[in-house]
Amino acid sequence: MNNDASKLAFASDYMEGAHPAVLDALVRTNMESTTGYGLDPHCKAAEKAILAACECPGGEVWFLEGGTQTNRVMVDALLRPWHGVMAAKTGHVAVHEAGAIEAGGHKVLELPHANGKVAAADIRTAIESHTTDANREHMVEPGMLYISQPTEYGTLYSLAELEELSATCRAAGIPLYVDGARLAYALAAPENDVTLPDLARLADAFYIGGTKCGTLLGEAVVLPQVGAIPGLFSMIKQHGALLAKGRILGVQFEALFEDGLYLRVCSYADEAAAAIAQTLKKHGLEVPVPQQTNQVFFLATPEQLDFLAAHVDLGFMEAWPDGRSLMRLATSWSTTPQAVEGLLKVVHGMAI
Amino acid sequence: MNNDASKLAFASDYMEGAHPAVLDALVRTNMESTTGYGLDPHCKAAEKAILAACECPGGEVWFLEGGTQTNRVMVDALLRPWHGVMAAKTGHVAVHEAGAIEAGGHKVLELPHANGKVAAADIRTAIESHTTDANREHMVEPGMLYISQPTEYGTLYSLAELEELSATCRAAGIPLYVDGARLAYALAAPENDVTLPDLARLADAFYIGGTKCGTLLGEAVVLPQVGAIPGLFSMIKQHGALLAKGRILGVQFEALFEDGLYLRVCSYADEAAAAIAQTLKKHGLEVPVPQQTNQVFFLATPEQLDFLAAHVDLGFMEAWPDGRSLMRLATSWSTTPQAVEGLLKVVHGMAI
Amino acid sequence: MNNDASKLAFASDYMEGAHPAVLDALVRTNMESTTGYGLDPHCKAAEKAILAACECPGGEVWFLEGGTQTNRVMVDALLRPWHGVMAAKTGHVAVHEAGAIEAGGHKVLELPHANGKVAAADIRTAIESHTTDANREHMVEPGMLYISQPTEYGTLYSLAELEELSATCRAAGIPLYVDGARLAYALAAPENDVTLPDLARLADAFYIGGTKCGTLLGEAVVLPQVGAIPGLFSMIKQHGALLAKGRILGVQFEALFEDGLYLRVCSYADEAAAAIAQTLKKHGLEVPVPQQTNQVFFLATPEQLDFLAAHVDLGFMEAWPDGRSLMRLATSWSTTPQAVEGLLKVVHGMAI
Amino acid sequence: MNNDASKLAFASDYMEGAHPAVLDALVRTNMESTTGYGLDPHCKAAEKAILAACECPGGEVWFLEGGTQTNRVMVDALLRPWHGVMAAKTGHVAVHEAGAIEAGGHKVLELPHANGKVAAADIRTAIESHTTDANREHMVEPGMLYISQPTEYGTLYSLAELEELSATCRAAGIPLYVDGARLAYALAAPENDVTLPDLARLADAFYIGGTKCGTLLGEAVVLPQVGAIPGLFSMIKQHGALLAKGRILGVQFEALFEDGLYLRVCSYADEAAAAIAQTLKKHGLEVPVPQQTNQVFFLATPEQLDFLAAHVDLGFMEAWPDGRSLMRLATSWSTTPQAVEGLLKVVHGMAI
Repeated sequence: MNNDASKLAFASDYMEGAHPAVLDALVRTNMESTTGYGLDPHCKAAEKAILAACECPGGEVWFLEGGTQTNRVMVDALLRPWHGVMAAKTGHVAVHEAGAIEAGGHKVLELPHANGKVAAADIRTAIESHTTDANREHMVEPGMLYISQPTEYGTLYSLAELEELSATCRAAGIPLYVDGARLAYALAAPENDVTLPDLARLADAFYIGGTKCGTLLGEAVVLPQVGAIPGLFSMIKQHGALLAKGRILGVQFEALFEDGLYLRVCSYADEAAAAIAQTLKKHGLEVPVPQQTNQVFFLATPEQLDFLAAHVDLGFMEAWPDGRSLMRLATSWSTTPQAVEGLLKVVHGMAI
Repeated sequence: MNNDASKLAFASDYMEGAHPAVLDALVRTNMESTTGYGLDPHCKAAEKAILAACECPGGEVWFLEGGTQTNRVMVDALLRPWHGVMAAKTGHVAVHEAGAIEAGGHKVLELPHANGKVAAADIRTAIESHTTDANREHMVEPGMLYISQPTEYGTLYSLAELEELSATCRAAGIPLYVDGARLAYALAAPENDVTLPDLARLADAFYIGGTKCGTLLGEAVVLPQVGAIPGLFSMIKQHGALLAKGRILGVQFEALFEDGLYLRVCSYADEAAAAIAQTLKKHGLEVPVPQQTNQVFFLATPEQLDFLAAHVDLGFMEAWPDGRSLMRLATSWSTTPQAVEGLLKVVHGMAI
Repeated sequence: MNNDASKLAFASDYMEGAHPAVLDALVRTNMESTTGYGLDPHCKAAEKAILAACECPGGEVWFLEGGTQTNRVMVDALLRPWHGVMAAKTGHVAVHEAGAIEAGGHKVLELPHANGKVAAADIRTAIESHTTDANREHMVEPGMLYISQPTEYGTLYSLAELEELSATCRAAGIPLYVDGARLAYALAAPENDVTLPDLARLADAFYIGGTKCGTLLGEAVVLPQVGAIPGLFSMIKQHGALLAKGRILGVQFEALFEDGLYLRVCSYADEAAAAIAQTLKKHGLEVPVPQQTNQVFFLATPEQLDFLAAHVDLGFMEAWPDGRSLMRLATSWSTTPQAVEGLLKVVHGMAI
Repeated sequence: MNNDASKLAFASDYMEGAHPAVLDALVRTNMESTTGYGLDPHCKAAEKAILAACECPGGEVWFLEGGTQTNRVMVDALLRPWHGVMAAKTGHVAVHEAGAIEAGGHKVLELPHANGKVAAADIRTAIESHTTDANREHMVEPGMLYISQPTEYGTLYSLAELEELSATCRAAGIPLYVDGARLAYALAAPENDVTLPDLARLADAFYIGGTKCGTLLGEAVVLPQVGAIPGLFSMIKQHGALLAKGRILGVQFEALFEDGLYLRVCSYADEAAAAIAQTLKKHGLEVPVPQQTNQVFFLATPEQLDFLAAHVDLGFMEAWPDGRSLMRLATSWSTTPQAVEGLLKVVHGMAI
């Protein structure tokens, strides 16, 4: 009952259920009777473990169900009505949330990007050009910055870059929010130098992705300062984002954080992606976006694509001007060495 | 790690995880690789099974995460901007959703109720008084009717009542929407004469509750006519209600519907509630709301309450004018005969 | 080209254009060239004159176009997303704004009323019952109080009542907002003891009605503390409530406030309403709502109504259980002694 | 009491009150007693005259107060929740409405432009790329096209261009909406070949600007098909856009349309703008946007700007990369030959 059981599964990183340790925790705690709405002991324990991992004991953690939901709730919670959210024009909030941000009443103020990353200089320009415009009160005020780590293109902000973005936002008095839907892939990446404590120190709010990193569902929002957002419980409820059995989110994150599993759960996925990228390049395929985490973007001719698609589930991104297609292969916490080996063989076969 | 492990758990019906058959299905399918966003084979199979149970092959089913979310999405999807939703003033949408309906732009037009149920005559009055008001265009137009089966007070609409509500709505050209958060408790109730096929025939949309009826999370919206609501997929996404791993909802409902488990999963809960209500009455406690499903509402003096609360987790509803409190005991699919026996003993002990 | 030129015009108080002094000011200033958006010298002068009349030099004034618009903008500006506005269930925001408050995302929390007025005790009950409810975060938090002076029934809050409402709100930390759509009729009423300085002292925001009190359009929002609402200019713009030629509002309020015209412009309307109420009562018609300002509510049999309606434009309010109708006669700043005399003759004729 | 009485007024086209004929109509009708909310005889007469001018007897006309308000109401009325509005990235809805469109829940889908104009080819690309995207349901669907005639840069769509845009929209089944805030300047322009009947034939909704074309306030929305938008009255009310004394809008448009004044009221403004543009060019100043209506955009060095700004109120648009500034001079229906002569002298003086 695979997507197509005869194909190798590299279409995305949310195709399987939960990591065995996570599933096991759900099974083990299933018949416990606990309070609802995230006020249970598992959510408390998960919060504590996460804050410890973030070296941020004075913070708080909220558990939500999915990425778009988390982004919408947090944007609505962080902004006032006359504010917009700055984001790369490739940012998830700008493109693939079916207008969720606008449905919440806010404009996405699109910024230029390089491989999905925004530059502090562009943030400064956007803020300054708003501040100095005589008609600024007729325009949407930049009220927060949204970035994703890793980005939608799998790339990473370095610690130096994140420091500069954070300093820029703080100088302007606007919050920095980090979408960590795939954060475990960043944390496990060889090139990464941004830790959870760094995020807690530099961001005003960020979320630690579960759905794509080993849970059935769930994202953990970290607010480094407890009480930073008044009314948040009610806003979560109002958005339909408050789970009655909230403890199923707590249980899963407890499993990921009680012994540091989150930091290593995606290591193999990153390694495998590196091997795939190398093999593609070795066989002459262009990889126009630097592979840093679990997503490999490459250009394929129609013939190459036909060959690949016959054996592998993969993702189409966009038509390239020269007739090639930008494609994506994604590994995940569930990717096996067997599947990677299979894929590398297919690539090799295609190249022959 | 119970709410309070030393107490009997009758506080609500969402305190435990999933029914063993449901959990088992999640475990069994965990490592399958499937498409996301509810387009997977399990969601398809669950949809088919649900439509079969509803004798409604021309319908469609959508899986969402929780009750408030489902109500908000469906109200937003069924109404145009100048419409409001009629509901009992005790309805979940009117009271306990933190203003979710209004956050979506719509007024809840409150109706009188009897034990949580609205009467067709009051619907007719509301519609007619709007229609004949010279200022009607300055007022909110009733655009749909929201009811819950069972209601927030555990009571049931009879088939005759539902037929009349449906006919009233259809005569006025407005949709009837049924919140079935606890529908399994209605379907299993001895007094119930409203079947799933009746709901599919008489409602324009309804949802089959999972969260309170044996799943970890999830509600199944049934639209008896496929395609009745254009843009629904995008609206679900926009509300942050589209789960990436949508298949975990499909898997759970598949388990509940493939062999009719949903129709019997709450039978014992209803039986137990009847026994509890009888025992309370036998010992002289007033049960002011007819017990029909899994919720028992009764009045307790401060002394009775103290005694009960020392042994049982139960719910406070409201202060009664005479100094007593309206309390709630709720059974669930997970309630055991041992717990019921324990509770009955406590009641007996209190009465002595 | 009257509504029906053959009838006496008592249907409402917005049937004619502007008071001659107001119209004259518009004519006199018509070809001046000024900055737009309310930043012109006339708006500044009107603001200064209004703040002087309110004995509130540290406040600020914003000019909007109409009552529903002003209420929606101010509710949206004063509330956060999880808040609702408390109001009498007869309040304009609760009934006759086509759901504008809900379209802005907020619930109207309806309060009981006596002739359109709310009581401080009911406010306290509403706030306390929210504060002490274990599920309060699942419910809409009372975030402000809306009252109208005079009310939709033409009745007046006394200074003592207003003091108590204000103290109640301040004790709870929520703003008090006063809708003064017909404020000039209150200020000119013999029984009134609430002055503009009282309003500025006791309310957190209120508006001085223009549309029903002598202008072509326009309402002046007074914020007793300058800068109390950040982002207000942009929120007004966002609501489509910012007039390019904002000065036409300033010019009109300048005319009403530069020499105190606003305080006397509705005196005759109030006097005339008192005479009408007395005459109705003298002729045996019941006046179930105390006449205090320019609106007279009375009960008419079908025969009386037929007779009246043949000669007078008047308003239907609601069907009375005994077959009579609750009707409204409204005077205005434009009502003439001739019209009143005519109306009294009709009442006399009807009674014969 | 001018903006700065010592300077020539070319800052914008909403600096003065109403055209004398419009003001005279307001004065003449001031003490008439009419029904409110636009249901009066003047609104009816103005509607009839406008539909006659549009050769569109089967249409309907709605009177609103200002441009941003009209755009927000119409976008909200024409779109469903999952739709966005396509517009030039320089369009008023995209830039200068403080996020009004997003506050209404909709994304502005920005299109490339040439001097403020969009091309049918780009519309087709936008629609087709949405339609063929596998993730289209996760993205905002283009639900209407917004254009302005003349554009924010004063340029004009030709009839051929408008025909193509209209055909493109109709082929895709999406409405075309035209913002005519400055429509009188288009209709009077020598190069213009788009008439009111053309707009009524090719657009699904458009508005005839009053505020910038001779009224105190007011815009007339034309729907070529009566009843095309259900619930519109209530939506206007809900947006706070329904004027109690609606007749003051009807009276003004009646004055503009009863004898065709609207078609000639801006003729001199266009002529004057042409003269100004020619003079600027003659003196070596670059005019980078073709002058077609009442707005003249030109580039000035810092020295030129200092000289001009000492004598003339004018508008700053943007800093040019080479150190010059893009400036705007706007004429209006109220511009006098004396003022133009004065301005031309200043330009001449600057050039010396």
